[in-house]
Amino acid sequence: MSLYTYLFYTQTSIAQERQSLERMLRFEAELAQAQAACGIIPQQAADIIQACCRIEFLDIEKLKLEIRLGGNAAIPLVQQLTRIVKNNDVEASRYVHVGATSQDVIDTATMLEIQEWMQWFDAKLNELAHVLFELTKQYRSTIMMGRTLLQQAKPMTFGLKTATWLEAVLRSKRRMKGMEILGLQLQGAVGSGNSAIQKEVQQKMAQSLGLPLAHSWHSNRDNFAEWASFLGILSGSLGKMAKDISLLMQTELGEVMEGAADGKGGSSTMPHKRNPVTCAAILANATRTPALVSTLLSAMPQEQERSAGLWHAEWETLTTLVELSAGSMDKTIDLMKGLEVNEERMLANVGMTHGLIFAENVSLALTPAYGKLQAHELVEKACKQSIKQGKSLQEVLATMDLPIADLDRLFVPKNSIGNSLSTIDEILQSYENTL
Amino acid sequence: MSLYTYLFYTQTSIAQERQSLERMLRFEAELAQAQAACGIIPQQAADIIQACCRIEFLDIEKLKLEIRLGGNAAIPLVQQLTRIVKNNDVEASRYVHVGATSQDVIDTATMLEIQEWMQWFDAKLNELAHVLFELTKQYRSTIMMGRTLLQQAKPMTFGLKTATWLEAVLRSKRRMKGMEILGLQLQGAVGSGNSAIQKEVQQKMAQSLGLPLAHSWHSNRDNFAEWASFLGILSGSLGKMAKDISLLMQTELGEVMEGAADGKGGSSTMPHKRNPVTCAAILANATRTPALVSTLLSAMPQEQERSAGLWHAEWETLTTLVELSAGSMDKTIDLMKGLEVNEERMLANVGMTHGLIFAENVSLALTPAYGKLQAHELVEKACKQSIKQGKSLQEVLATMDLPIADLDRLFVPKNSIGNSLSTIDEILQSYENTL
Amino acid sequence: MSLYTYLFYTQTSIAQERQSLERMLRFEAELAQAQAACGIIPQQAADIIQACCRIEFLDIEKLKLEIRLGGNAAIPLVQQLTRIVKNNDVEASRYVHVGATSQDVIDTATMLEIQEWMQWFDAKLNELAHVLFELTKQYRSTIMMGRTLLQQAKPMTFGLKTATWLEAVLRSKRRMKGMEILGLQLQGAVGSGNSAIQKEVQQKMAQSLGLPLAHSWHSNRDNFAEWASFLGILSGSLGKMAKDISLLMQTELGEVMEGAADGKGGSSTMPHKRNPVTCAAILANATRTPALVSTLLSAMPQEQERSAGLWHAEWETLTTLVELSAGSMDKTIDLMKGLEVNEERMLANVGMTHGLIFAENVSLALTPAYGKLQAHELVEKACKQSIKQGKSLQEVLATMDLPIADLDRLFVPKNSIGNSLSTIDEILQSYENTL
Amino acid sequence: MSLYTYLFYTQTSIAQERQSLERMLRFEAELAQAQAACGIIPQQAADIIQACCRIEFLDIEKLKLEIRLGGNAAIPLVQQLTRIVKNNDVEASRYVHVGATSQDVIDTATMLEIQEWMQWFDAKLNELAHVLFELTKQYRSTIMMGRTLLQQAKPMTFGLKTATWLEAVLRSKRRMKGMEILGLQLQGAVGSGNSAIQKEVQQKMAQSLGLPLAHSWHSNRDNFAEWASFLGILSGSLGKMAKDISLLMQTELGEVMEGAADGKGGSSTMPHKRNPVTCAAILANATRTPALVSTLLSAMPQEQERSAGLWHAEWETLTTLVELSAGSMDKTIDLMKGLEVNEERMLANVGMTHGLIFAENVSLALTPAYGKLQAHELVEKACKQSIKQGKSLQEVLATMDLPIADLDRLFVPKNSIGNSLSTIDEILQSYENTL
Repeated sequence: MSLYTYLFYTQTSIAQERQSLERMLRFEAELAQAQAACGIIPQQAADIIQACCRIEFLDIEKLKLEIRLGGNAAIPLVQQLTRIVKNNDVEASRYVHVGATSQDVIDTATMLEIQEWMQWFDAKLNELAHVLFELTKQYRSTIMMGRTLLQQAKPMTFGLKTATWLEAVLRSKRRMKGMEILGLQLQGAVGSGNSAIQKEVQQKMAQSLGLPLAHSWHSNRDNFAEWASFLGILSGSLGKMAKDISLLMQTELGEVMEGAADGKGGSSTMPHKRNPVTCAAILANATRTPALVSTLLSAMPQEQERSAGLWHAEWETLTTLVELSAGSMDKTIDLMKGLEVNEERMLANVGMTHGLIFAENVSLALTPAYGKLQAHELVEKACKQSIKQGKSLQEVLATMDLPIADLDRLFVPKNSIGNSLSTIDEILQSYENTL
Repeated sequence: MSLYTYLFYTQTSIAQERQSLERMLRFEAELAQAQAACGIIPQQAADIIQACCRIEFLDIEKLKLEIRLGGNAAIPLVQQLTRIVKNNDVEASRYVHVGATSQDVIDTATMLEIQEWMQWFDAKLNELAHVLFELTKQYRSTIMMGRTLLQQAKPMTFGLKTATWLEAVLRSKRRMKGMEILGLQLQGAVGSGNSAIQKEVQQKMAQSLGLPLAHSWHSNRDNFAEWASFLGILSGSLGKMAKDISLLMQTELGEVMEGAADGKGGSSTMPHKRNPVTCAAILANATRTPALVSTLLSAMPQEQERSAGLWHAEWETLTTLVELSAGSMDKTIDLMKGLEVNEERMLANVGMTHGLIFAENVSLALTPAYGKLQAHELVEKACKQSIKQGKSLQEVLATMDLPIADLDRLFVPKNSIGNSLSTIDEILQSYENTL
Repeated sequence: MSLYTYLFYTQTSIAQERQSLERMLRFEAELAQAQAACGIIPQQAADIIQACCRIEFLDIEKLKLEIRLGGNAAIPLVQQLTRIVKNNDVEASRYVHVGATSQDVIDTATMLEIQEWMQWFDAKLNELAHVLFELTKQYRSTIMMGRTLLQQAKPMTFGLKTATWLEAVLRSKRRMKGMEILGLQLQGAVGSGNSAIQKEVQQKMAQSLGLPLAHSWHSNRDNFAEWASFLGILSGSLGKMAKDISLLMQTELGEVMEGAADGKGGSSTMPHKRNPVTCAAILANATRTPALVSTLLSAMPQEQERSAGLWHAEWETLTTLVELSAGSMDKTIDLMKGLEVNEERMLANVGMTHGLIFAENVSLALTPAYGKLQAHELVEKACKQSIKQGKSLQEVLATMDLPIADLDRLFVPKNSIGNSLSTIDEILQSYENTL
Repeated sequence: MSLYTYLFYTQTSIAQERQSLERMLRFEAELAQAQAACGIIPQQAADIIQACCRIEFLDIEKLKLEIRLGGNAAIPLVQQLTRIVKNNDVEASRYVHVGATSQDVIDTATMLEIQEWMQWFDAKLNELAHVLFELTKQYRSTIMMGRTLLQQAKPMTFGLKTATWLEAVLRSKRRMKGMEILGLQLQGAVGSGNSAIQKEVQQKMAQSLGLPLAHSWHSNRDNFAEWASFLGILSGSLGKMAKDISLLMQTELGEVMEGAADGKGGSSTMPHKRNPVTCAAILANATRTPALVSTLLSAMPQEQERSAGLWHAEWETLTTLVELSAGSMDKTIDLMKGLEVNEERMLANVGMTHGLIFAENVSLALTPAYGKLQAHELVEKACKQSIKQGKSLQEVLATMDLPIADLDRLFVPKNSIGNSLSTIDEILQSYENTL
């Protein structure tokens, strides 16, 4: 438990140490059962082994100390398990972990963990999609400035912004569903299998663990890397939303606000501030996840049938990566649920350039007469005049005798939001189609 | 053209500067045609614009200089194109690039580039899969040591190694096919569209360019990040093969060799060496690609409707990443095609521990009688004795009166390759099923 | 020459391919001369070799093709050089590159390049420091909002901001001066030296090339990694300045502006915008450099006496890293030289919260009477009331009968800039002391 | 406490959560004392505050929960401290944390932590240097193969290898000593200071904490990045040693061995193996640290006077980075202390190419007569013949009537180690000079 457990992370037990050990024990229990079902070990031995596969029986501190000697968690776990079984039944202890290798236990346990995470993320992605769907419906027509390179550009609606976020979330969902990354690892010392873990055993194990069958991927780690990439991409998409909100929360924009909670976002010295605390956490996570993905990619060229170091580099990296991504996921849902939208400030900000942001409308209106380039240059000149003279662009243009029928129309914000509404409606519809 | 063009890269023109500019011109030509087809601009103007969209007409050096001013390649390209059209037909020049924004041009051009790369990689993945299929068939039964943590572990066959590589390649192929990352970008200044680039225009553009329709993804870059991840994963998988081969090429192992070419792999001072030059290039690329992926993930939280810096960070990074990945792809095909396999050395190396590598066989054989742990300990003791006395493990064990019927059988390499052959056959079959 | 040569980079020839080859030729020429001076090869041979070490004599395209075979640039370079010498004097050709190894040539050439870059950066850091010194003097007392977590916090002066930038630049300068990273590489095949490159030869080479003597660092690359880190840190510091400026340029803040140049910062569709184009380039570079540093750190665990891949990963990575860093350096100088500061907007923005930003002043003034926590809470309440009632904080507080003598004084911006001016003066003085 | 605490890390309490909080409390205590000494707050209040600054008084779980609200650890810590003081003395509670900002507390506490780490690393670097010095002396003349690109190249001595490692360690020591990265952070909300934390207070704080004075570096983070880079470089240097040892431990080389400990390095299925477990841990760390450095570099462009996210990204990243680096440090010392060197295998491996590795000697000997290129080609031919005919190179050459006086001499290993011994002696001497 780090000092920042509640700031950056979500409170799920999936990646906790006990859960990890339990999944390894589950591997050993199911292996024994599968081997018994195939007549490789006695059924009674399998039952005793299974009964002994309980986290309460392990001496976890001792296990941790011994990892230093063997180099991975499976070695002391199997040793302890064997002794526990032996204390119950000497005969049965002969049948623990037969034919399997340490990496079989660890990799399969990780697959089971990923499986749990995928369910977790699926539910959370659904929840976030739903919140964004609601926000999009609610603010479908709320006019705000679109901003490019941090400059006011053209009006749009807030619903268009949330709709593009929603699309990113839906793509993440499809991306996760599309991955074929799960697979049982049960291949023995060098991935060649042996008589104790033959095909039939593998099939029974795969079925009982709910994992697809696979050949050895002991040192071919592309599936791990794909899972890492999915998480990195997701964290990036969530970071994009937090970036937007933190910018819109700036005192000078004031268009949205993180939901208030007692004591939330306050500064120790400036009582008036409303800091984007949740955004900061999500952005911090999005700053950290890319490097963790790169570590897992760097760890891919694993030597021969099992790596000396690269495999080991995966363990904690993957855990931190998934925990940060899950933290961002949860926090983004909170952020969106509590979001306070200031429609007045949004509209007020549309007006702050005295019409300059409608310049493109004028350009487009002049293009038939002058062509794109000349229209652009003419309007650029008018803009400079407007700034210099402190007049609105509309006033400046009114004096210029231009071939435009209804100049006023070009300066009405809701006439300048392009296809925002139809785009939003398509996205809302496509979301509903996924339900 | 870098000094190392031929060492790290492949010689395709896909990512070259001229091709990039041609794809942008293609965007402008097809935009005009789509707008003409929808009655937004005159057909004649569209035809003139299209005729002017030729790379030969551009002043590329001037364009590069002007990128410094506008901040992206589309701005000076549209300016030059407009002038070129104007020189031919003043009227037509009014209809260049109407309603589109710079990022529409650049992002769509990148999508077209990715599309070309996907075809390129598909063909290359097929070629590599085929070579690995052939290698696997050829060396299906060639006995070699499996090695874990760089230590001799248990025998397997060389075909099993190449078969697991083959599976990684087939997964890469499916991974690429499964990605839905392509999409037309045609959404105007802030992604809201406008009357000049309405739905109908987008549909025609999408069709003529062979890209799926999409809503604005100007600042939601997950699809780019997924493409980057795919490349990073692929480079890692190829790096894994090069890592194995470079290790197997060690003087002390001598089991495989990069194909000889006149002057290849020589050292300037040691005429006898056969350096893993191609492996070194592939490994260098696999060392560089993870960081490039992380850059593209770091660039995801793009501000508002267009980023000031993060979008710009993508351009060259994506190019370097795809070029390194393609280089590795091509070089791995060469490597595998030319691979020299020394079956004698492989077999000789199996014998070098005087039977120690068969210890697990003995452990397994003793497990029914003693249980896993005790069997393990007994064999460990025998191994230490064998090393100390300089005798083979088999000799040591023979003196120990163990409950093993046929000790010799446990020391025959081909009896110790587990399910290598059946695993290989499954993988070969699954490859053939993809054809 | 990439499409974006002028956007992200500076135009120096230091890292260009011809310069790199010339530095390798310089190595060969000086090696021959040093060996002649030590009586190891004939002086006449050395003179002929030196005369042949001219870039014009090389067939560069052929050299590039042959790098593919030998795996590094030195092998074909030495081959070509030997042939060139042989065409002039068969006897002399026997004395080319005697006793040296490829990596000696390449690493030493890189050291010579770094030496040139250090001079380049030293001059540029001086130039940037000077511009920041001038900006700091000019805007020493220009009141602006300090902003934390993107929220208005407390007033300060613009000079304080530029002064902290200046300090970062001065630290970078000292950091570069403090590095002991340069060293001659001349150690032969495995770093053990030999009679042809004995100590005396090394000393003469080191002297003629202006490099410190060093023992073999063929596969101990910490000095390279330190150079990379220096560049990464510098790019980050420059990115920080660009980040600040791009945020201050936001339409809603409008406090500073990149200098105008004809056509600079315009948008293709929004003629009124003034995009932070230079900032975007510097930020793009700062997004890319961290990953390149990580590549060079990842490349450190090089195998034995020369790596198969990690050494190769350094070459282009180091070049891109230094070129991006130099680009940022140059662009930041331009940015600061042309910076337009809008003092009116700065002051106006100080007033936009109707006094809320002075809340800490009130807190501090109330602390003697109420204690920090209670004072904070009281002021927090007043702030909420001010926002709710649309009144200034000063008005709200005036109705609350507080133990504060002169409430007005607390709301005068220049009374709230803390020690800004004395801090600035110290920094200006410390800069002057460095001259 | 992670599952892998003992595998990857060292057991020091420096970075533990309690220590971190204690350093923050120390900041508050010394701040109060410094302010009392300057007459800003009553001495009695300072004494009470100091007495209350005890970790035992904090409700750490509550503090963690509240970090979620305020966004950093200092806010709830100051709140708790104020309440604790208030429970003792209402008057004194008014003087807690006066004038300081959260980041002052956190950054200064981190500086104090870095200060402790620097002492820790200094002692460890001394210890490692000493072990390497002893190894170098012991194996000064132990002949082994030098290997380049994983191929046998030329003989050298094992002492030369350890001597180059020693030099890297000594450079790391100098690098750490040369850094000027420590500095008090005490600048208030926006870095401008205020009357409660004026110069005199800063001076007293700096003195009592043993930190240099500094102006605000709230958002200029180059010093943090330099510390991170130092750690990344160090981990890379240690990784290089572990890489070498893990390669030398390969069954086929068998030249060195990690020290045996009961149960250490065993495999769960292969009782005969001696896995490079410690090397694997150090290599895993070296695979992870580069990405963490890149995160800290990516976090440099912090917005304005305090960042929303990038500052937050530093906290855990820096902790993980320093803990992994410290882990590698400790483990490398263990590794070197226990290293078993097999001098017979080293010498035997020198002979395994039947003289091919002496080819360069022959080349050099022929150069005066034939020139470098022709000599090289001639020897290359002889090598091929040797391999083809299964004869030693010496035998082949003996039949060729070459202008070499004493062919035998060229094939004596100790004649082929170049300047290994003198290089070693220089390095040993330079180490002794540092004592």
